[in-house]
Amino acid sequence: MSMEEITLQDILNANGRIKNDIIKTPIIKNNYINKLTGKNLFFKCENFQETGSFKVRGALNAVKKAIENGGDVQGFLTHSSGNHGTALAWAAHVVGKRCIVVVPQNTPQFKRKRIERYGASLIFADNTIKGREDTCEETRITTGFYVIQPFNAFEVMAGQGTLAIEIEEEVPNCEAVLVAVGGGGLVSGISTYFKEKNKNVKVFCVDVEGKNLQDSVLAKKRLWDDDGASLDTIADGIRVKVVGDKCFEQVVNNCEEEVLTVNDEEIIEAMKIIYEEMKIVVEPTGAVTFAGLLKYKDTILKDVKNITLIVCGGNVSSNDISKIFSP
Amino acid sequence: MSMEEITLQDILNANGRIKNDIIKTPIIKNNYINKLTGKNLFFKCENFQETGSFKVRGALNAVKKAIENGGDVQGFLTHSSGNHGTALAWAAHVVGKRCIVVVPQNTPQFKRKRIERYGASLIFADNTIKGREDTCEETRITTGFYVIQPFNAFEVMAGQGTLAIEIEEEVPNCEAVLVAVGGGGLVSGISTYFKEKNKNVKVFCVDVEGKNLQDSVLAKKRLWDDDGASLDTIADGIRVKVVGDKCFEQVVNNCEEEVLTVNDEEIIEAMKIIYEEMKIVVEPTGAVTFAGLLKYKDTILKDVKNITLIVCGGNVSSNDISKIFSP
Repeated sequence: MSMEEITLQDILNANGRIKNDIIKTPIIKNNYINKLTGKNLFFKCENFQETGSFKVRGALNAVKKAIENGGDVQGFLTHSSGNHGTALAWAAHVVGKRCIVVVPQNTPQFKRKRIERYGASLIFADNTIKGREDTCEETRITTGFYVIQPFNAFEVMAGQGTLAIEIEEEVPNCEAVLVAVGGGGLVSGISTYFKEKNKNVKVFCVDVEGKNLQDSVLAKKRLWDDDGASLDTIADGIRVKVVGDKCFEQVVNNCEEEVLTVNDEEIIEAMKIIYEEMKIVVEPTGAVTFAGLLKYKDTILKDVKNITLIVCGGNVSSNDISKIFSP
Repeated sequence: MSMEEITLQDILNANGRIKNDIIKTPIIKNNYINKLTGKNLFFKCENFQETGSFKVRGALNAVKKAIENGGDVQGFLTHSSGNHGTALAWAAHVVGKRCIVVVPQNTPQFKRKRIERYGASLIFADNTIKGREDTCEETRITTGFYVIQPFNAFEVMAGQGTLAIEIEEEVPNCEAVLVAVGGGGLVSGISTYFKEKNKNVKVFCVDVEGKNLQDSVLAKKRLWDDDGASLDTIADGIRVKVVGDKCFEQVVNNCEEEVLTVNDEEIIEAMKIIYEEMKIVVEPTGAVTFAGLLKYKDTILKDVKNITLIVCGGNVSSNDISKIFSP
């Protein structure tokens, strides 16, 4: 165990920093889906969050904390083609600082435009993880910009944890929360909060096939051998295979030991129900928790009735929606 | 002019009848879309209404009024393959009565299942409008069920008008409301309300190419020659070509004289922006008003800034979404 980890107080502090800038997203219930599943489900809709994902919580907390800490912060920098890049661009815009996002050359226009919307500059790097990291480091050296990592950073984890505060306020009878796990920033924050504040709320990790988070959790040890590996999954928000070391500790300490695992077919089926019944647009990663619920409702989840599902994001192009739902 | 027409009081009475059973749907604003259009837009989201469209307002009002009027109401009956059929099935379910919906044989399973979900029986008829009407009339004679028309009926129009009450409450600075027009039930109710209650609110009709509502409005006369005609448009909720005679009077008396007209391409473009930016699922007809706004924002709509767009429904299958967004 490391000595340093996030605490309930870090999350409460993060909430104070960001709550006036972010959206308190709606929690949606659906009678038909409740009947279908036999559960009482609360969909926490971060697809309606600023920039279309929960990532702004961690990004804005980290940005504001960096400024609080003093020093001459000229701007912010990260490498990400997805929701973290857009979130950081937005967060820098909120505080009036410059932002550079390193993206792979093959980043589709839909994603590029979302990042540029908030005034950030793009730098194009090789399509490999290493290529992105190298370009990011070179850019840091030449610009002196402050790097905000996508998940494996305490202020990011604490920011994502603010979601738990809203869940506790609006779902007082909540017994379980399901969280999709990529790098692990979101689940770290949420599970830390409930572990310290309300042990009655169980936090379940949902991953995709090929990640094998279950093995590492049971071993209480990160069994992955390639830090830069990415998964072949439709859920592009959680393609990173390896949980960050700081995040992994929270997962082992605070989450349920049983991991729910879903595949692309199950994610698409969950997306269809969400679109057709709830009338909300979610990206594939945003449907991962509901896919997990559908698959495990009568087994791992059989003893919990009031369940919050994090709908983590809604950034998907109409073009991709067409492909995903193509018969 | 007929002596009989709906009044503000009819709409207020309708609201009293239905408000505890329907959803007060959210009105959503979007900063990005406001910047894009230079307007201050309020999307009234009836895609989140019970059964996924505003049609429950008129259906439930008509159903409850029929019961109030006395007589031995055994059940309710209509012909519709779409949102009115589902809405009537739901309304009959709410009051504990039976329901039969006559649908064309080619009605897709997605729509059939939505009607059956509320316990209604389906009867299959020829795919022509006349075939449906004949079967509906035969069914009425054999069952004695009470027929609820989809739009050209005062209680239905009054029920749809309850939407205006919610708009007035939540958009106090509203200058204009855009409404998609098929048979005209919705626009009748809404325009009657504002004409009597608040003349500062202009109500604009949006139709699709081929309907030529503009010509009839200018002539103050229904110029269509085939009552059963339907339009070739992606907006399946407003394929009926002719505005009902009762509805047409309200359109002429209460709406702006200028009609906005859009085509399929413009509707799909509007849908893409709604899905990608607002993260909500709308059916093609639900995007018709936004398509009209995009097309006429600098011409017919140049003098109005605070505009409410009725998003009339969200019933579209994932299969159809895929086809619509196919590049």
